[in-house]
Parts: sequence; structure tokens; C-alpha cells
Amino acid sequence: MADHGFLSPGFARADGLDDGCFATAMVDVELAWATATGADAARLGRLRDAAATIDPSEIAGGLEAGGNALIPLLAQWRRHLDDADARALHTGLTSQDVIDTALILLTRTAFAAARTDLSAAAGSLDGLAREFAQAPAAAHTLGQAAEGTTLGLRFAQWAEGLRRAADALGVAELPLAFGGAAGTARTQSAEEVARWGAELGLTVPELPWHTSRWPVLRIGSAAGEAIAALGKIGGDVITASRTEIAELAEPTGGTSSAMPHKQNPVRSILLRRSAIAAPGLTSTLSVAAGLAEDERPAGAWHAEWEAWRTLLRHLRSAASIGAELGAGLVVDTDRAAAHSEGLTQPDRARIAGLMDRDDNTRR
Amino acid sequence: MADHGFLSPGFARADGLDDGCFATAMVDVELAWATATGADAARLGRLRDAAATIDPSEIAGGLEAGGNALIPLLAQWRRHLDDADARALHTGLTSQDVIDTALILLTRTAFAAARTDLSAAAGSLDGLAREFAQAPAAAHTLGQAAEGTTLGLRFAQWAEGLRRAADALGVAELPLAFGGAAGTARTQSAEEVARWGAELGLTVPELPWHTSRWPVLRIGSAAGEAIAALGKIGGDVITASRTEIAELAEPTGGTSSAMPHKQNPVRSILLRRSAIAAPGLTSTLSVAAGLAEDERPAGAWHAEWEAWRTLLRHLRSAASIGAELGAGLVVDTDRAAAHSEGLTQPDRARIAGLMDRDDNTRR
Amino acid sequence: MADHGFLSPGFARADGLDDGCFATAMVDVELAWATATGADAARLGRLRDAAATIDPSEIAGGLEAGGNALIPLLAQWRRHLDDADARALHTGLTSQDVIDTALILLTRTAFAAARTDLSAAAGSLDGLAREFAQAPAAAHTLGQAAEGTTLGLRFAQWAEGLRRAADALGVAELPLAFGGAAGTARTQSAEEVARWGAELGLTVPELPWHTSRWPVLRIGSAAGEAIAALGKIGGDVITASRTEIAELAEPTGGTSSAMPHKQNPVRSILLRRSAIAAPGLTSTLSVAAGLAEDERPAGAWHAEWEAWRTLLRHLRSAASIGAELGAGLVVDTDRAAAHSEGLTQPDRARIAGLMDRDDNTRR
Amino acid sequence: MADHGFLSPGFARADGLDDGCFATAMVDVELAWATATGADAARLGRLRDAAATIDPSEIAGGLEAGGNALIPLLAQWRRHLDDADARALHTGLTSQDVIDTALILLTRTAFAAARTDLSAAAGSLDGLAREFAQAPAAAHTLGQAAEGTTLGLRFAQWAEGLRRAADALGVAELPLAFGGAAGTARTQSAEEVARWGAELGLTVPELPWHTSRWPVLRIGSAAGEAIAALGKIGGDVITASRTEIAELAEPTGGTSSAMPHKQNPVRSILLRRSAIAAPGLTSTLSVAAGLAEDERPAGAWHAEWEAWRTLLRHLRSAASIGAELGAGLVVDTDRAAAHSEGLTQPDRARIAGLMDRDDNTRR
Repeated sequence: MADHGFLSPGFARADGLDDGCFATAMVDVELAWATATGADAARLGRLRDAAATIDPSEIAGGLEAGGNALIPLLAQWRRHLDDADARALHTGLTSQDVIDTALILLTRTAFAAARTDLSAAAGSLDGLAREFAQAPAAAHTLGQAAEGTTLGLRFAQWAEGLRRAADALGVAELPLAFGGAAGTARTQSAEEVARWGAELGLTVPELPWHTSRWPVLRIGSAAGEAIAALGKIGGDVITASRTEIAELAEPTGGTSSAMPHKQNPVRSILLRRSAIAAPGLTSTLSVAAGLAEDERPAGAWHAEWEAWRTLLRHLRSAASIGAELGAGLVVDTDRAAAHSEGLTQPDRARIAGLMDRDDNTRR
Repeated sequence: MADHGFLSPGFARADGLDDGCFATAMVDVELAWATATGADAARLGRLRDAAATIDPSEIAGGLEAGGNALIPLLAQWRRHLDDADARALHTGLTSQDVIDTALILLTRTAFAAARTDLSAAAGSLDGLAREFAQAPAAAHTLGQAAEGTTLGLRFAQWAEGLRRAADALGVAELPLAFGGAAGTARTQSAEEVARWGAELGLTVPELPWHTSRWPVLRIGSAAGEAIAALGKIGGDVITASRTEIAELAEPTGGTSSAMPHKQNPVRSILLRRSAIAAPGLTSTLSVAAGLAEDERPAGAWHAEWEAWRTLLRHLRSAASIGAELGAGLVVDTDRAAAHSEGLTQPDRARIAGLMDRDDNTRR
Repeated sequence: MADHGFLSPGFARADGLDDGCFATAMVDVELAWATATGADAARLGRLRDAAATIDPSEIAGGLEAGGNALIPLLAQWRRHLDDADARALHTGLTSQDVIDTALILLTRTAFAAARTDLSAAAGSLDGLAREFAQAPAAAHTLGQAAEGTTLGLRFAQWAEGLRRAADALGVAELPLAFGGAAGTARTQSAEEVARWGAELGLTVPELPWHTSRWPVLRIGSAAGEAIAALGKIGGDVITASRTEIAELAEPTGGTSSAMPHKQNPVRSILLRRSAIAAPGLTSTLSVAAGLAEDERPAGAWHAEWEAWRTLLRHLRSAASIGAELGAGLVVDTDRAAAHSEGLTQPDRARIAGLMDRDDNTRR
Repeated sequence: MADHGFLSPGFARADGLDDGCFATAMVDVELAWATATGADAARLGRLRDAAATIDPSEIAGGLEAGGNALIPLLAQWRRHLDDADARALHTGLTSQDVIDTALILLTRTAFAAARTDLSAAAGSLDGLAREFAQAPAAAHTLGQAAEGTTLGLRFAQWAEGLRRAADALGVAELPLAFGGAAGTARTQSAEEVARWGAELGLTVPELPWHTSRWPVLRIGSAAGEAIAALGKIGGDVITASRTEIAELAEPTGGTSSAMPHKQNPVRSILLRRSAIAAPGLTSTLSVAAGLAEDERPAGAWHAEWEAWRTLLRHLRSAASIGAELGAGLVVDTDRAAAHSEGLTQPDRARIAGLMDRDDNTRR
């Protein structure tokens, strides 16, 4: 496996999520545990130095022995440590503590970046909403022109969807995974766990969530809401930029392999792509949560990993594209106005009330 | 169509969700709007009386003309009203305002009932957790006995999953759907909308959500989390009650058509059933949200309805079954202890710390 | 539960699938088994007479005891039989034999009706393809007008999708479910099973499929293909009938609750609705198949039932709507031609070759 | 993006599917078209030589301009060609022709390898079925021991599921994607298309399938059936190897990071993992098929790519693991026999009839 994202245009925007980053996150979780359990600076330095020598491609060869990436990572890491350091490493932990927490770390970074992009996109759309607050447009329901609206209200509604989604990302709890070999925390004192969580900047829930997958579900739901909100915009831009309609256009269009003159709304297409692909991934997380048997699931846990990361990639990619799209959207007010002719016109004062920033930003 | 739930054992527990209830909810939404827009008591009385004559089976024949149930309901309703009352009814509204809000009302009732059941189930499990706080059991990871745990901790973890899910149900916002024919609120003043929301006891969001489906996604996610938490318990009970293991048993087992002596863990089976079926339904809501085009979606909106309701039925059914299961779970401590022999025993003080009620209930 | 389809416009077209029909199918399966195992005409008559007294609503109350509808059906049925007849009934069978086979019988009826509708729809579209073989239209790729095509080719491609889907429905095997209490056929001789299958007109596979769910997966896939093919057409009609485009129109449009003058493409909306809702249902069948543990699944089997039937309802509804849509589609050749102006025109001889009926119908 | 499969143990078995292979497949499709349209040996040689210089990582930088990998691949390729050769390349084709056909080529290789593995697994299980034809075991229904069966029958049923899945893979049509810029084949004569298909060894359907996605649906369904059949086996092995049951064991168990003595059924876990993850991917293909609008979908097509490949990776990984598991499964007949004590014993002659090879292999 050596993928460069050929089948996922836009995923290059989703940095911080590849296998190397995941390995780094696992290392960080182990180092934080070592710190929380009293490793001194010298040992931490040796652990860190040894970690720097880990070769990701070597991990790949050991994935199946234990069924996860941590086991070969530890094996390699320990080969560069003396016995005492090697014994100290990972002591008291279980694979799931480390892997789940590492995925939470990747999620934190991805959510922060996505929130920034969503806010930027919402900000751009707010600007368009103000600029085109009075610009008449046709509102369509069930595919048919229904009544007049304004372009400004449409943009404001898009922005509102993105702000709500950014809020949802912000609310999703990002907890430390702890519990040890059997979820009893036998080898993890409350104090150690608290220090570990503090070290990583993660919340510490009352009980392990090895088989109570509420954090994963909530992360998936928050990501899904953002991707859907972006996909809705993408779909609307595709329609509005359709040749016969042509009210909106992307900043610069995409290239066609057969027709170089043709400008395709590639950003919007990729937003819509993610909105179509993400629900299958969140459904995998949901199925897995309901099947999280015993004290560590035999398969349901493993099914989460790639779905979780791919969902984050869709989120990051879509949020970044959304920010770009919002920043450069080209508006043809004449076309929009022409399409609203003959329709019942909206109540502009009422629309202004809906769009009032004090309202929209009072949360 | 005349279904009695033959293919969905347990759905009889999910009252308040059938087509008659949905019709009643639509009527309530219309009456609340009439109230909010100044209908006097006499008119409200006449509207209410006429609504009482609506025949659900007659609505069924008119579903396809407009593609939803409100249109034939209004047609029937108006036949029992004089012209002035008929004109007053629904004036200023659009189908989506009424249908979405009616589904929110069904959701409110279902969520309240489910929260009660989840709390009851969690309470029962807390009781079991205390009763069996010291009872040794084997913790299994990846299908293998790993270390010792206690039955009490297991029950406490199940309870915690249910409490978190109950919290999630409580947090999900239940907003009024407003916006009128084109989502511009042209025919709905801010004051009317505020009174309408207050009349129904629903929050009023800043902007219409006709095509910004965050409320639906969040409702679906909250329901899904609860169903998954219950499904996890169901799966564990099925395993623990397996003939060769026999550590737990349901209050009374199910009947077999071929082997009357056999006791099947029917409640747990139905919990697991719902956990397997629900993710497909939430994925439909997610796809629909991402495809919510224009100012009213042509198909994506319609795809939500049955998925939304069926999800609520799974939720109600599972929560009710879960409460019953929790209340009567039969525990064989000897079998559980026997299976933990030879395993590293847990740190009981640490487990007690994890299970400490002050911790568990501090939220 | 007393549903009339309020949340599923179009499902009234899907007759033969409600709970009463399912009960009848279970009765038919039991009677066929009685016949295959040598019940004489007198006993069969008595069994049939007693079956006629079964009250579906009474079954509903007994669903949870055994977790399925057959157990209370048998209990009620036996109350109207003398001891010998009661003992003869169901002897040698297990619930899953009867329920799975009954669902196969419902599927057979639904598939046959859907194939008829799909063929009718394809036939109508073939007619339109011939009629508008030369009518210029714009082909859109990635949302943009790309090159010229003809309306005829578009209709021919829609028809081809429906024909392929009809083929897929025809190819899906509809096997008898047998195997008895534990899937060993201990109580079902090969001869009895063969007679039973012949009696019902179903194929008899080599081995029971209680936990090898290939028939369910293939049925789901075939239904899904048809629903997708119809959904693609629905989506295209929605776009083509959009106010600004207006190249196509449904036979008669739908009614709006707020804007009586507005004509909504309700049929196409319902096709699209089904295409959005069906994948969640087939995913449930797929998850269930992969979790079909032991000799009868504890939950995965139960999750299939409602998803399976709802999928059949979408299939029947969509195929019937598709036939109606195909029969009455209104074409505006001038609008279509106007939208193709300036585009590279297609090679009409090549298109004629693609559309050649000998080619298209040679399968 | 630089992934090594850290989150997908077992995917290293799925060779032939990474981005480099996809690029090679696109090159092969272009070369076959050049051949079919009369490029002489000299030109083909130059095209081939230039193709050998393509740097996959450079393609990655150009993915978003046109929204797919072919456009930057062609740009790079053409830089190494003279004008006449550059012009000849891709002339008459559209991106979708090449990308869809390339994915079909990857599918062909993957299906062939998976069929070999499935057959090997089925063969091993047939051997076990014969060896343990008389070995008593408990059949479980709804989680409870129901009646006696034999280990042999269980293995035979697993094998049958794999054989059916291998058949399904064999039946799935692998067609050439053609049609050109707008699906009218304006630039692709029937003869050229026929030669192109023959060159690649693919069938040539009557009409383009750019927006009639039956091949993708059928490929997804066939892969899904195989993954489910393997997942069912994985789940059963996990249960049978559970510490308290211990009737089966994997050839050699997996390693635990915390408990080196513990043997985890890693292969079975990965089979179950794939069975849980695959349905979300096939649901994406189904949604995309129903949304395949116009003459090239704006997003629905793009959503297929990664889901399609990941599904093939699950298929290949699971089939390979299944073959290994079947070849080395360790059986404890004493434990199995002990668990069947007291149960009604099966009819061994009847079981022998079910398992009769003439029956099982007559397809």
C-alpha cells in the first residue's frame, strides 16, 4: 500500500492524519503516560530519542501479529532501549488505551483546523450575505421556483449551517482512553490517569470507554454534521452554476480532460462527494458501537479505525474547500434577479430581521 | 398497508408514534399557529371540533397528490369548516413547517419516554453494580479471557453508557420548524413565530432549518447513541447467557416454536436487533441532510420521514426493553467466579473508585 | 401501531406486503409442509379452515414472547384444531424455516409485479426514445453542458437501466428455507423438502441458509439496483422540469399546500426519495449477513425483517411510479433544443447504432 | 498522505490496488485505446516509454484542478511526448471512460485473486468437513444450545457460503466503460470500441454506463457477499475459540501488547472487522448509483472511487485471511462433543445427504 490520494481529490488538504502522524500520536500517548507515572527527564529523553528512529514502513510488516499498529511500534521502539527503559515503556497500558487516545489526538487537531475553516467559510458567506442582502433570487421548493427570496438570505442560511456545525465540533468531548488490559484500571491509579489526561490536555471520563463508544459516536456525528452542511452548499452551487442557470460560479473552474474550455465546479463536486461518502462511514461507527462486546470488541473496534480517519479526512478536506469556495464565490445578480421575476417577492424587512447579526451571533 | 408490527417485535412499546399520532401532531401544530396568529376561542373551538372528525384512512388516499400527508389532512379538515375558518387554517404556513414540527413533537414525547426508561434501566444496573460490586468475573478482550474484573464494574459501565445516552437525548434541541412557503418567513412575523414556538413549547432558532438539517441529524445521533448503548448490553447478555457460559439470564426467557423447553434471551435479541437496524436509518438521515438542496429538498426531505420515525420506534422499544431487562436480570455469581479463576485479579479499591457514585453522578 | 403510510407516500402501491399478507404467507408455508409430509385432504381442509379464523391483531400481542410472529400465529391456529391436527401442524419445522420462506413468497410476488412495471416503464421509454430519436438536447457532465446529445438517447439509456434491473430481479434466486430446529434437517427428509419446495414453486438449495444469507443479500441487491435505476430517472426529471430548464414535465404535477398553482414533480420526488432511503436498508441486510452467527442469529436475523419488507415496498412503489411516469412524460423539444445550441453536435448515426433495438433487446 | 495500512491490518494482502497500480491501469486503458484506434507499433512504443517516466507523487499535486487523477497523469505523460504523439493520446476519450475502466481492471485482478482464495478456503473447509463429518457438536440458535449437529456439517455450510460467494464474483460482469465526452460515443466508433474491449479482455455493453451504474452495484454486491460469508465464519470462530468454549483455535494466535501469553484470534477478528466495515462502503455505492445524474454525476461518481477500492481491499484481505484460517483451523473434538451432551442428536444419514459432494459441487 502506497497511496497518494489518487482516488480522493482534496484529501491532501487533510494533513496531520496519515500513518506517520498516527504513529507520532501513539508515541506521544506513551510518553505522556511515562511522564504521568514518574519517568525522569533522562528516561524521557532516551524514550524520545529512540522513538525518533522508528521506521513506519517497518511497522507495516507487523500489523497482523497482534492486529494493530501499536504492537510492532513498541517492538521496534524497545529494540533501541535498554532493558529498564524497555520495561518502563507501555507498562500499565493496553493497546486500546494508546490507539483510542492517539485517534482522539488526531481528531483534536483535525477538529481545530476544521473549525477554523468552517468559521472562515461562514465569515465569507456572512460578507456575501451583507453584500447581497437585497439581491432578488428565486427560492425553489421541490425543484420548482416558489417565491422570491434574496441571495443574501441564502448565503446567511448556508453560513448558519456552518456555524452550527462548528459549534458541534467544539462541543464533542475528546476524552482520554484509559482502563488498561481489562478496563479495570488495575495498573492505572486515579492520580496517574488524571496526570496523564492533563499531560495530553484531554478530559478524563469517570469510566473507561473501551466498549462504551459514546466518544466515537459523538465525534462521528459532529464530523457528519459539518460534512452535510458543506455538502448542502456544494449541491446548491452545482445547481446555481449549471449552464442554463448560471447565477453562481466557483472562483476558478476545474479542467476537463476532453473539453479544455469547460469549467467544472470542482470544489462543489468534492463537497458533494464527501456528503455522499461520509454517511457510510458514520454508519460503520454506529454499527461498531452497538457491537462493542465484552471488555474489548473483537472486530467492531478494528472496524472503527479506518472509518474514523477517513471521516476526518472528508471533514478537513471539505472544510478547507468550503473556506476557499466561500472566499471566492462569483455572483451574477442579474441572472438571479431574472429568475425571480414574476414570483411573489419576499418581505425584506422580515428577511433583515432573520439575518440580523445580533441574532445570528448571539450564541 | 395495515401493519401490526409483525416484523418488529417490541415496537408495540413505542406508542405515540403511529400515523394517527402523527396526524394529531399536525393538527396541534396548525392549532398552535392559529392561536399564535390571533384566532379567537370560538374559531379554535370550531377548528378543534372539525379536526376531531378527520379520518386517518381517508388521508391515505390523498398522499400522492402533493407527496405528503398534510395536504389531504387539510382538505378533509376544511370540508368541515365554513369558508372563513377554512381560509384561516394553515394560512401563512407551508407543509414543511407543519410536518417537520409535528415530527419534532413526536420526537419530544419519544425522547421523554426513552429517557425515563433509560434512567430506570441505569438505576437498576446501579443496584446490580452495588449488589455485585465484589463478585469476581472474567474480563474478555478480543474474545479471550484477559484478567479478572467484577460483575459490579461491568454493570456500572453498562449503566454509565445508558446515562450518557439519556444525557444526549436531553441535550438534543427540539426546534420549531418555520419559514413558510420559501423559507423567507414572509407570512410569519417574528412575534407570531415566537408565540407559536411558546405555544408548542419548542425553541425557535434564528433561521429556518428547511434545508439546514442539523436538528434531524442531532436527533438521529442521540437516538443512535442510546440504541447502541442498549445494543451493547443486549449483546453481552446474549453471550453471558449462552448455554456454555450461563452467568446471566433474562428475567424469563423466550419461547421456541420447535423446542418449548428452550429459553431464548428475547429481550437482548431485540436490543441487538435494534442496534443492527438503526445505523442504516441514521445513515439515511445523514445522506438526506447532505442533499437538502434549494429551499425544500425534492426527495431528500421525504426520505427522512419514515427513517426518522422508525428510529424513534427502535429507541422507544429498546429503552423500554432495556428497563425491563435491567430490572430482572438473573445473576449466577458462582459461574462468573468460576470463569475468572486463574486470572490476574483486579484491584478492588481501584474498581470501587471508578464506581464511586459521587463520581458517576457528578454530571 | 396502526399505520396507513402517512410517512411513505406511494407505498399504497406496494400491495401484498402488509402484515396480513405475511401471515397468509406463513400459513401457506405451513400448509405446503403439511402437504409435503402427507397430510390428507381432510386434514388440510381443517387446517385451512382454522387458519381462516386467525385474527392478525391478536398475533400482535404475542410477538415478544418468542420474538417472532409465527409463534403466536401457531398458538392461535392450534386453538381451532383438535389435538391430532394441532400436533401435525408445524411438526418438523422451525420458526426460521417458515418466516424466511414466507418472506421469500412475498418477495416473489413483489419482484414479479416490479418486473412488470419496470418492463412497462422501459417500454414507454423505448417509445419516447424512438419518438425523440433526433431531438437535440444538451448532455451535462459535472453539472455543465458539455456536448449535444439527443433526447432519444437519454430515454434509451434510462430504459436500458430499467431493463438491466428487471433482469437482475429475474435472476435473483428465491429458495425455500429449510433445515429445522438446528439446521441439520433432522426432521425433514430430502424427499419431504423436495416436495415442499415443489409445492411452493421455490428452488431447494443443497444446504440450509439459516445463517448463510446469500439469498437475502442477492434479493436486496437486485431490489437496490432497480430502485437506483428509477432514482436516477427521478433525479433527471426533477432537474429537467426545474422552472428555469423546463424540458420535461410530469404527466400532472403535485399539489402544494401553500401555492395551489405550483406543479411539483411528485412522482420523480418519490423515486428519488426511495433511492435515498433504500441504501440504508440494504446496508442493514449486509451487516446482518456478516453477523449471522451460529445456527440461528440472535438479533441479526430479526434486523433483516423490516428492512427486507421496507425495501420491497420501495421497489414496488418506485417501479409502479416509474411506469406511470414513463407513460406520461411531457417533452418540450424546443426548450431542449435551445439548450443544446452552440454545443458540438452528436454523431446521429452513431447514436442510432447505440440505440438499435436488435442490440438493446438481444439479451 | 502516505499510508502504510496502520489502521487496516491485513490490507497488505490486497496488492494490485494501490495508487501506482491504478495509474498503471489508466495507462493500460489509454494504450489499449491507442491500439484500437490504429496507433502503430512505433507510436505505442513511444507512448509506453513515456508512460514509464510518470511519477505518481507528481500526479498527487494535480488532483484538484480537474477533480480526478487522469488529468495530471495525462499532463505529465504528454510532457514526454512530441506533439503528434501527445495529440494522439486520449483523443476521443473522456476521463470517465478511462477511470471507470481502470477500476474495472483493478476489480478483475482482485476478483480473480479473491476467487482463488475463496476456493482454497472452501477446499480446506471441505477437508475439515470430511474429517469431522461424525464429530458431535452443539447447534446454537438465538444464543442457546438447541440440538446436536456435527462439526462436519458446520464446516460444510461455511464452505458452501464461500463457494456461492466465489460464484457471485465470477458472475459479476466486468464491462468496458466507453461513451466519450457526453456518453454519445461521438468520437468512438462501434468498431473501435469493440477492438478496445477485446484488447482489454472486457465485455462491451450496448450502451455507456457513465450514469447507469449497474456494473458498480453488482461488483459491490458480489464483494459484499464474499465479505459477509467470511465474516460469518470469523464470528463463529471467535465464539468457538472463546476461553470458556474452546472448541476451535486459530492456527497461531495473535499477540497482546499487555498480556504476551494471551492468544487472540486475530484472523477471525479481521474477517469480522471487514464484515462490519464493508456495508457502509456498499451503501455509498448504492447512494451514488441512485444519484448518478445527467451524463456524468457531479459528486456521486467521485464518491464511488475510494469506497470501491476499499471494498476490494476488504475482499482481498478477507479472502486471503480466510484461506489461511481454513488451512490451519485447530479443532478440539472433545470439547465440542462435551458441549453437545444431553442434546437431541442429529440424523447422521440426513447430514451425510446434505453434505454429499455430488450435491455440493454440481453447480
